[in-house]
Amino acid sequence: MTKHVTLAIDCMGGDHGTKITVPAALAFLATHPDDRLILVGQSDPIGEELRRAKVPSSDRLSVHHATEVIAMDEPPRQALRNKKDSSMRVAANLVKSGAADAFVSAGNTGALMAISRFVLKTLPGIDRPAIASVLPTMKGSTYMLDLGANVDCTPEHLLQFAVMGASLVAAVEQKERPTIGLLNIGEEAIKGNEVVKLAADLLRESGLNFIGNVEGDGIYRGAADVIVCDGFVGNVALKTSEGLAQMLGSFLREEFTRSIFAKLSALVALPVIARFRRRVDHRRYNGATLLGLRGIVVKSHGSADSYAFQRAVERAAEEVRHDVLARIVGTTQPAGAEAVA
Amino acid sequence: MTKHVTLAIDCMGGDHGTKITVPAALAFLATHPDDRLILVGQSDPIGEELRRAKVPSSDRLSVHHATEVIAMDEPPRQALRNKKDSSMRVAANLVKSGAADAFVSAGNTGALMAISRFVLKTLPGIDRPAIASVLPTMKGSTYMLDLGANVDCTPEHLLQFAVMGASLVAAVEQKERPTIGLLNIGEEAIKGNEVVKLAADLLRESGLNFIGNVEGDGIYRGAADVIVCDGFVGNVALKTSEGLAQMLGSFLREEFTRSIFAKLSALVALPVIARFRRRVDHRRYNGATLLGLRGIVVKSHGSADSYAFQRAVERAAEEVRHDVLARIVGTTQPAGAEAVA
Repeated sequence: MTKHVTLAIDCMGGDHGTKITVPAALAFLATHPDDRLILVGQSDPIGEELRRAKVPSSDRLSVHHATEVIAMDEPPRQALRNKKDSSMRVAANLVKSGAADAFVSAGNTGALMAISRFVLKTLPGIDRPAIASVLPTMKGSTYMLDLGANVDCTPEHLLQFAVMGASLVAAVEQKERPTIGLLNIGEEAIKGNEVVKLAADLLRESGLNFIGNVEGDGIYRGAADVIVCDGFVGNVALKTSEGLAQMLGSFLREEFTRSIFAKLSALVALPVIARFRRRVDHRRYNGATLLGLRGIVVKSHGSADSYAFQRAVERAAEEVRHDVLARIVGTTQPAGAEAVA
Repeated sequence: MTKHVTLAIDCMGGDHGTKITVPAALAFLATHPDDRLILVGQSDPIGEELRRAKVPSSDRLSVHHATEVIAMDEPPRQALRNKKDSSMRVAANLVKSGAADAFVSAGNTGALMAISRFVLKTLPGIDRPAIASVLPTMKGSTYMLDLGANVDCTPEHLLQFAVMGASLVAAVEQKERPTIGLLNIGEEAIKGNEVVKLAADLLRESGLNFIGNVEGDGIYRGAADVIVCDGFVGNVALKTSEGLAQMLGSFLREEFTRSIFAKLSALVALPVIARFRRRVDHRRYNGATLLGLRGIVVKSHGSADSYAFQRAVERAAEEVRHDVLARIVGTTQPAGAEAVA
């Protein structure tokens, strides 16, 4: 696992652009002495951040100028058609040409998906790429997909998500036959819609380690290594979780500042609360993978800070090192079929 | 708002049956001196709980014997067809006949919906009943529906849910024009599936106070008074929230018991943590309403304890007192149309 990795970083994406992405890139380089980064974007703001950080020049760090920036709210189609020299597009091109092994962006998800599909193309056997992310559970972690790329899925799409998710977990977590759960609703009610029922049939026949339906609470109980769902449901589940965690965090803060006594007890409890916060820190889980493309693309949360963005860069490096792409191709392609460049 | 209420209680439903439902009923009677309860179920276990509680006889409390019990995992159709004398069915009949104003059950959701629809029928103008529940938010609370009764919804169904949800909130919370949000996925991705897009069009033309799309995190931010979604998505969102809250609670417990120091600080922080726990105690929000029927039916969580079940009984009483049914009929029916018994 000592494969050296070259990653392209879209420095312009996200709510904070270079102010976040460049420091994160430098922190990554400092802790990964064999890896290389290509900083993609407008050379002025990138150069400014590099000067501010006072880093000596290094053959492990290069800047690749790109003139255009895709706005966070720009319609994907427009970004794809009109901005041929955007940092996102140029970063994708670097992966396409083989100059980079993967790229990371905190930009506009819709544009990232559109550009990645257009530039890199989907893998053979995959109709639609999906967004996969790792979530903490009572037992460790789980991978969930799709988280929002596909709002209307057929049973076949859900099967493809399962195959890709299994490959991702097998490669990165070195679990040979990860368990697959299909997100569904309570046994009390009518068990799921038609698409989910048919997907369950396909999964049962797939040879994957399918354990059946998983309800919403099963995600965080760690009921399966991979949770498969359509992008609408996955996105709602993920964002609902974010909202609930924020609310609980804010209530906890309020209670610990409500009175002098509460503030004093907060002081005493601080180390414990800090441990708790670290444990459930969503920044540690930043970095969603666009699975199903002929290249590794990792999406950071747009509001990521430098620590969180660095985690997304590390995720991309891990996926390259563990050859996630070859793993997916190996399971979605019959032996002897077209290889991926 | 001093209307006296008579409620039928399905004492046999839920994971714990009479051990939970009877004490909850007695606690309700003690705090609502003008209301009446009819305890429905097998008179032996009910009588045993009443003897244990040593309550004097009262004209506000009666027992209505029903010989059969619907199991928590019993297929709804079977429960409906074969158990004509189940506690759930008899309780529904009491509402139908007017002997009770509403009924409460912690039993099997599927059976409860099937029996309630069969016995009570849906309201004019409503195709499908929905399950609505109140959730805590940063700003107060929000009502969400559907939470699992309908896995495949048309845009018209979602509109009906919105109308019923608005009536419920207007009646119970005395908010005249509650805001309505449509649960949808991030703006970055393609905005929702076809059903949601068409539902948004209908809502915009409906005359309701429609504020547009709400993402998952908007639920707990309190983005709208009523959140509308199909039952699949709603159920996943609700159960995912339950799972996450459980995980965070368990992590917090673990951190506060990890070492002697942590245990000591837990002791100091106990009053604050207790306040926090009370504030986010899901038991307070127990009691989901089956909306769209010609009668008020409240579903308690199957695993509810006595405190939680009592909350569901209180919810039913509130809905009767605030005439939720008449409110819904008033908004779904043109003036002069058939009145509800």
